[in-house]
Amino acid sequence: MPADVDYLKGLLRSYPDYPKKGIVFLDIFPLLRNPVAFETLITHFVHRLTSHTIASSPSKKIDVVVGLDARGFLIGPIIAMRLGAAFVPVRKRGKLPGETISAEYQKEYGLDVFEMQADAIAKGQNVVIIDDLIATGGSAKAAGELVAKLGGNTLEYLFIIELTFLQAASKLDAPMYSIVKVDD
Amino acid sequence: MPADVDYLKGLLRSYPDYPKKGIVFLDIFPLLRNPVAFETLITHFVHRLTSHTIASSPSKKIDVVVGLDARGFLIGPIIAMRLGAAFVPVRKRGKLPGETISAEYQKEYGLDVFEMQADAIAKGQNVVIIDDLIATGGSAKAAGELVAKLGGNTLEYLFIIELTFLQAASKLDAPMYSIVKVDD
Repeated sequence: MPADVDYLKGLLRSYPDYPKKGIVFLDIFPLLRNPVAFETLITHFVHRLTSHTIASSPSKKIDVVVGLDARGFLIGPIIAMRLGAAFVPVRKRGKLPGETISAEYQKEYGLDVFEMQADAIAKGQNVVIIDDLIATGGSAKAAGELVAKLGGNTLEYLFIIELTFLQAASKLDAPMYSIVKVDD
Repeated sequence: MPADVDYLKGLLRSYPDYPKKGIVFLDIFPLLRNPVAFETLITHFVHRLTSHTIASSPSKKIDVVVGLDARGFLIGPIIAMRLGAAFVPVRKRGKLPGETISAEYQKEYGLDVFEMQADAIAKGQNVVIIDDLIATGGSAKAAGELVAKLGGNTLEYLFIIELTFLQAASKLDAPMYSIVKVDD
């Protein structure tokens, strides 16, 4: 494991049986309390994007970083700023004003709905989608559907933490990258 | 009005009667779609903090930036990173793992509860509290109560937009700074 990944993984805090029995919650907020750790995290993502992801873009440019409400908001805008890209949010239904488009996804009990502003992405723009964690991949898939509806070209999905045993990658329409992989 | 404030104000989009009749919603997301505008916004806050706020800190240092879920998450972490400070979230009840402290605030219909992780701020640390908008000030006041409970020293409250006619400043235990003032 690269030293920066090892360092970041060691700072995550585990909470067994939270928010309910059988789930181990991994808390990313200790990383944000530590300026060196937070810089390490953001630089890891930016290095991935500039050394690898951008190569798959026809224009060698990332136009838009999409972040999921709420923890994707912690990292998406900084990464967008570093790349000179736009930041565009995906939010739960009813939180964004103006004309929106929507996509449904399966939650544990029933469906939920994500929205994006209809003029947020122009046709042909290169997009990356960012959130803190990918579990089953339902919310990431819905975010990708919103990008596709507006004609955006998703280059990659990025996450701090991936629960690899849930095999979310197969659901997504573009490659996935995660920093910390959790196997069980 | 300084040119950067005028520029930022001009990029906010107004939505009359959203989310309900009689309310004019000001959308900050156009600022985040435009990398120059977003840099202008963040630099405005960082300049305020480094040229003014920090002078009121005994140690001439801001230790912690507190941001409110969810739109405070868009700007708080970047400002914390620029200052070499910690970022600490305030979230609705039940969203933060581990030991938490809580404060109630009045919403339009009934009370809501904010939480902060109990070890997030050390006694005597210098804190600024950031959100996108201040209206009645109930949520900002609750955030300030959480900081005070942990022994933190709030230097200033910062917002992109202030609805000045709601006179929130009188509720807060430290000075308030806002970039765009809305008078009606």
